[in-house]
Amino acid sequence: MSTGETGVTAPAGFRAAGVAAGIKQSGAPDVALVVNDGPDATAAGVFTRNRVKAAPVLWSERVLAAGIVKAVVLNAGNANACTGPDGFGDTHATAERVAIRLGIGPADVAVCSTGLIGERLPVDALLSGVDGAAKALSRTGGGDAAEAIRTTDTRAKQVRLDGDGYVVGGMAKGAGMLAPALATMLCVLTTDAVADTDLLNTALRRAVAVTFERIDSDGCLSTNDTVLLLASGASGVSATEQDLTDLVTAACADLAGQLLADAEGATKEVAIEVTGAASEDDAVEVGRAIARNNLVKTALFGNDPNWGRILAAIGTTSAEFAPERLDVAVNGVWICRNGCAAADRSGVDLSGRAVTITAELHAGSESATVWTNDLSHAYVHENSAYST
Amino acid sequence: MSTGETGVTAPAGFRAAGVAAGIKQSGAPDVALVVNDGPDATAAGVFTRNRVKAAPVLWSERVLAAGIVKAVVLNAGNANACTGPDGFGDTHATAERVAIRLGIGPADVAVCSTGLIGERLPVDALLSGVDGAAKALSRTGGGDAAEAIRTTDTRAKQVRLDGDGYVVGGMAKGAGMLAPALATMLCVLTTDAVADTDLLNTALRRAVAVTFERIDSDGCLSTNDTVLLLASGASGVSATEQDLTDLVTAACADLAGQLLADAEGATKEVAIEVTGAASEDDAVEVGRAIARNNLVKTALFGNDPNWGRILAAIGTTSAEFAPERLDVAVNGVWICRNGCAAADRSGVDLSGRAVTITAELHAGSESATVWTNDLSHAYVHENSAYST
Repeated sequence: MSTGETGVTAPAGFRAAGVAAGIKQSGAPDVALVVNDGPDATAAGVFTRNRVKAAPVLWSERVLAAGIVKAVVLNAGNANACTGPDGFGDTHATAERVAIRLGIGPADVAVCSTGLIGERLPVDALLSGVDGAAKALSRTGGGDAAEAIRTTDTRAKQVRLDGDGYVVGGMAKGAGMLAPALATMLCVLTTDAVADTDLLNTALRRAVAVTFERIDSDGCLSTNDTVLLLASGASGVSATEQDLTDLVTAACADLAGQLLADAEGATKEVAIEVTGAASEDDAVEVGRAIARNNLVKTALFGNDPNWGRILAAIGTTSAEFAPERLDVAVNGVWICRNGCAAADRSGVDLSGRAVTITAELHAGSESATVWTNDLSHAYVHENSAYST
Repeated sequence: MSTGETGVTAPAGFRAAGVAAGIKQSGAPDVALVVNDGPDATAAGVFTRNRVKAAPVLWSERVLAAGIVKAVVLNAGNANACTGPDGFGDTHATAERVAIRLGIGPADVAVCSTGLIGERLPVDALLSGVDGAAKALSRTGGGDAAEAIRTTDTRAKQVRLDGDGYVVGGMAKGAGMLAPALATMLCVLTTDAVADTDLLNTALRRAVAVTFERIDSDGCLSTNDTVLLLASGASGVSATEQDLTDLVTAACADLAGQLLADAEGATKEVAIEVTGAASEDDAVEVGRAIARNNLVKTALFGNDPNWGRILAAIGTTSAEFAPERLDVAVNGVWICRNGCAAADRSGVDLSGRAVTITAELHAGSESATVWTNDLSHAYVHENSAYST
């Protein structure tokens, strides 16, 4: 049955561990293992759209194509990206070692890595970490696993949501598209619901599309981004599509919020609400254009409600709108109406971390929200100082 | 005949002036006037692709549609963007005043503005500036005009190139896509060649496509970007298409280089050479993806030849390439071969301002170069500190 805790071991049927294997120079925990003890082992995955994919992404895409995952091994400290056939061999060896220790097949082992790009993994360290993690597996190991996948994260990120007779748990690290300095976004979600692969795929893709896919701090796609959903069926309760989708979406939204609040060097969490769009795609395109605009982002860092820059960002999109009908509010103050100055922008309070930009396109009834951060001195510092 | 000087008054048939009208709070010159005394008055223009266009862009697009420009009036200190019908009225009034002072029609007067977005122009100041500039017009006024269009530019930008019996001159300000803080890119080119509107359009569009369009510092399109080419025919020499295109391209390249070297807050000028592309479009797409990637740009600011981030940027494009065949050099050192680490990156010297990134796609024989800057603390400072 479910533990009373949060994280990947909250649902019944899962064990996890996190151990230090010496991949991180700091000596902090850097290898995590999540095991699905069943009775089911259905799974779904969503991976980075970057065409330069890390070895563990290439491996795990194959594993997920079969829809069965019995274990996930994750390491921090090295992304095993841009490492060629040798790097793929390292991932393969890692999955083999997990399979041997657990008595399962390597084709049922997903692998995730995060950390430095372009350097070979210290694979001996990782394999000994797998041995240690396999011995340390426990029904309450989710917290240790969440700790072990941190890179520049200042804290571990976990979630637990209770459904109707089953539980969804999860952990994430990142960074992600927020500011993947050394980093990437990894997320493992677990549930003890009974759900086949098709249902898991539907729930996960819908959830990711409106949560992780709408966090966009610097527009940079990582080579390693991975989101996995594993079902053990241990509750014996079959999930409906709607309920499971809602629960997984809520879990992803919770973790996405934790990522946003922990983004490297950010001083603001910014919600960009685009309303009155002709289509949801239009709303997302406009939201993303604002989220990625360095001039908007630096203005927010400077506590400047610069609506002119927001209009200029909207103007770069192909969304349906008329420039002379655009309205923009910042933290509820409509400082731009009909494409011109409206309320006095000195009335906008930008002293807090939370900022809401509302862009009304007057072109329809669709809407979407995209989340981002500001562009700060600390962002430049962290991303210029991390080096070879 | 041609003066011995540089700038917009270098070719025969042009007068110019630059005066202080009180639009800039500093009291510096802020109104420029360029007059084509003919005998011809053919012209071509290229404008921002931003759909949120400033009033002077909307006006000048109409003027250029007829292919005749007898005068260009430019002001700094206020962009007259996002100012609605009233702002358009201000632009109209400005063109009318120029027309009255010069005894020409307002439909032959192009208008350019640069500066703060979203605030009404101090139109009385601008109109008195027009009066002063009309009185100050001279055959050697190009330098004064170039001074008057500066915003955050640390120096005026002019060019002069001598063709076979005719001259091309020009001035620019910006900023532009480089870092349009308060700012935008404006450029006026002049020639005393005999050239009809079609020829001018061909030469200007080809020139801009491989120069100004390939400078991409922060990916932000301004609301005001304008490039104009005016021909007086005063040399009596008809330009061939090839010669004029070559000369205008060289003039634009020279001014683009001056913009890049003067970009706000930059510590590096970065040339991104993409080779082995299946098409020129592919090469430009890849170059632009690298140029816009904040992680690449912060790494360069930190003197870090981070080829992994360059590969990750290439991976976001739809260009034809195989990840396992990508080669990347920084300042001539091939630190990535076949998508993996190659030469020791400690051998890359990034101590100077000039950086060349070479990305070989091994997918064809086309190539393109895109120019950008790094992303520095000073960029964040300048773009967050400029405020209301």
